[in-house]
Amino acid sequence: MPIQAALAELSTLLGQRLSLSKSDLELHGRSETYFPTTPPDAVAYPETTQEVSDLVRICAAHKLPVVGWGTGTSLEGQAVAFSGGVVVDFSRMNRVLDLRQGDMDVAVQPGITREALNEELRATGLFFPVDPGANASIGGMASTRASGTTAVRYGTMRDNVLGLEVVLADGRIIRTGTRARKTAAGYDLTGLFVGAEGTLGLITELTLKLHGQPEAITAAICAFDTVDDAVRAVIDTIQMGLSMARIELLDAETAKAFNAYAGASMPECPHLMVEFHGSETGVAEMAETFGAIIADHNGHGFDWATRPEDRNALWTMRHNGAYAIYAARPGWKSLVTDVCVPISRLAEAVNETAADLRDSGLYGPILGHVGDGNFHSVIMFDPADQAALERVKAASNRMVERALAMGGTMTGEHGIGVGKMGYMQAEHGQGWQVMGAIKQALDPQNILNPGKMVPPRN
Amino acid sequence: MPIQAALAELSTLLGQRLSLSKSDLELHGRSETYFPTTPPDAVAYPETTQEVSDLVRICAAHKLPVVGWGTGTSLEGQAVAFSGGVVVDFSRMNRVLDLRQGDMDVAVQPGITREALNEELRATGLFFPVDPGANASIGGMASTRASGTTAVRYGTMRDNVLGLEVVLADGRIIRTGTRARKTAAGYDLTGLFVGAEGTLGLITELTLKLHGQPEAITAAICAFDTVDDAVRAVIDTIQMGLSMARIELLDAETAKAFNAYAGASMPECPHLMVEFHGSETGVAEMAETFGAIIADHNGHGFDWATRPEDRNALWTMRHNGAYAIYAARPGWKSLVTDVCVPISRLAEAVNETAADLRDSGLYGPILGHVGDGNFHSVIMFDPADQAALERVKAASNRMVERALAMGGTMTGEHGIGVGKMGYMQAEHGQGWQVMGAIKQALDPQNILNPGKMVPPRN
Repeated sequence: MPIQAALAELSTLLGQRLSLSKSDLELHGRSETYFPTTPPDAVAYPETTQEVSDLVRICAAHKLPVVGWGTGTSLEGQAVAFSGGVVVDFSRMNRVLDLRQGDMDVAVQPGITREALNEELRATGLFFPVDPGANASIGGMASTRASGTTAVRYGTMRDNVLGLEVVLADGRIIRTGTRARKTAAGYDLTGLFVGAEGTLGLITELTLKLHGQPEAITAAICAFDTVDDAVRAVIDTIQMGLSMARIELLDAETAKAFNAYAGASMPECPHLMVEFHGSETGVAEMAETFGAIIADHNGHGFDWATRPEDRNALWTMRHNGAYAIYAARPGWKSLVTDVCVPISRLAEAVNETAADLRDSGLYGPILGHVGDGNFHSVIMFDPADQAALERVKAASNRMVERALAMGGTMTGEHGIGVGKMGYMQAEHGQGWQVMGAIKQALDPQNILNPGKMVPPRN
Repeated sequence: MPIQAALAELSTLLGQRLSLSKSDLELHGRSETYFPTTPPDAVAYPETTQEVSDLVRICAAHKLPVVGWGTGTSLEGQAVAFSGGVVVDFSRMNRVLDLRQGDMDVAVQPGITREALNEELRATGLFFPVDPGANASIGGMASTRASGTTAVRYGTMRDNVLGLEVVLADGRIIRTGTRARKTAAGYDLTGLFVGAEGTLGLITELTLKLHGQPEAITAAICAFDTVDDAVRAVIDTIQMGLSMARIELLDAETAKAFNAYAGASMPECPHLMVEFHGSETGVAEMAETFGAIIADHNGHGFDWATRPEDRNALWTMRHNGAYAIYAARPGWKSLVTDVCVPISRLAEAVNETAADLRDSGLYGPILGHVGDGNFHSVIMFDPADQAALERVKAASNRMVERALAMGGTMTGEHGIGVGKMGYMQAEHGQGWQVMGAIKQALDPQNILNPGKMVPPRN
């Protein structure tokens, strides 16, 4: 069998670092959400770029699929090898390669997690801001164009990757971008590989922008009677040019879940959680202005978290949002939606989603990064109830349809994987064919994460 | 002749808006710098996306080159049809299509200039910040990934284009991106067409991010004894996290040229020009912090421009920088260099460039967007002196080599055109072949701005 020949060659290359153990295959066939576990044929643990290149050459010679793996925390099945093949686990390529404080940039290997990176940066006064919640790997975050709570201030992975080293489908190693802060030198290959979900190449090194740790930080939570009030407050805040570092919306259902899971005692109504970064006086001024805006929109129960431990408690609660919701329905599975709409349509989109879920008899608390117009519903269902999953998918479809009709996107930050493939034609039209042409040009054998991202080949 | 047949079809499509007049061809064969005037075969003035699509289909059928044209202010010959064909002048597609104040975005046609756009926005409290100096068209700015003085705060065109409508090489019309502030939905086609210099498609509509006009603005100029002092002040400013809206370096030669051209009375030494945007108290605080940093680096002659007319005078002087330098050598031509390096290497790069130009007997004042590590030398030469042009090119080559050796790029903002084609292999290595593969996939007949950007085909 050709696959045995390929695995034999890979085994010669990697020795013990090619794993065929059942538990390892099982572990690398899982996704965080509702997709069926699909073990790959093998898991590879390369330690160098050259090894990645060599293993891709072997797979290319045998037409064996190659799928990159960071921490397995993506939500749309991006890292699952649904067509079989080799999962490339980057956990042994997890070092900081070159930290340049003066330039506020750093070169890292793809397997380092965002928390490990920030731990290494702690003493420098610098930090890497992109924060998708999960302690994902930096390579995975780049591949899925991750963002999260801080994107409203610091941007997404698209904005924070200066350059890449990439292994192409034929094993060639290229470098994209430079360490310069901007460039007009040709096609933006860095931007093309960021968000490509490993379908165009495997990222083996990243150069990241770093940011200075702010002199002062203040965070707050406040309650609103309606989602409309909360969203109008956000719109005013943006239009005033107030520089929020984070601004998060929770609906009443999420507040309830927090109360139950984290022992919070929040009123069971919509809330905003907000954070400002700046100088002492700058932050104080922003807080004052924000307070006035909140008052204009019937905000109440304003609670400033000035001490670091209070702030940490606040954001830990937010980051555990999905877990709080999972805990409300023990043993159930979830489908996490991720639309992003123009801010003027946000209240409407959230309200229509809540009404739709209610009418569909579904439990789906809503929370989101409202400064960007991005929100999620974590829709829960009993995995034994196939009809429930169908109702969940139908509600998710309607969310996407509404977002597209409003000029928005099916996914603000979770990406495509297999979960969103069905919407690519609707969102991109002929542009999806263009993506297919690029894929064909860079991976003519279709070995890199096949079955994802682009239209099926004839 | 096939070209006559193509022109006849184009003439049927566009009527009087297909121009074959000698003066028009001549005008559209010019570049701003030292390239020889090369008139195209025809100039088309489409008024709709459908007309652009139809004209591209005609050109594709006859394999006639198609080259987009905004205002002709690019500096590397991007818009010149060196292989003949049709120049598509977008000046009749210059409207604001949809201004959405609540979402702080706007849809425009590519022919609108940045000044015309900002004029239309004036009453809204919003503005479009990207400012390359020239009153370029927005389509041209996107195609060349323009930036300029404000990129340090607001980003480049890469950061400020949300979505595009593009006519492909076969006449198909696609839309990229959405009006959502972020998306993880597939390959970043918007980012691919931005900076592609019309080699992958013709941009027929752009959705742009807008920004709120700041409550307060303050600007200043100050003098330094050495470029090192000035650059060290910039590095400290960045590391303090001070949010500059602009920070520009002029060397002593540029100061001299300003004195002669604009009747300024600057000391003939290096200067920084800086601007802060924010709230009244925020700007005051930033100005105070900046003043202290300047004092630490022997800055002197600090002059704050608080009145709008003083600020305008300051930035008008800066924007006329190239003209001031041209005026110092009447009748001469220029080559404008554009390297961008990591900030820690900036002083070294500027000093080595100045020494190199001096040793080469060349007049080339230096000025730049130092917050990004991007600087230019406007190197002048007598067009009658062919040997001088060769010396200028050799000095420019050495600037690029130094920038690449420092981890920088050959072009921060001017792009490739024909002027920088010779450096693509050095900067991108195998990545340049990847660009060629993408071009081949999207424009297999090589009709879109042929001879630019990608490796020559075999």
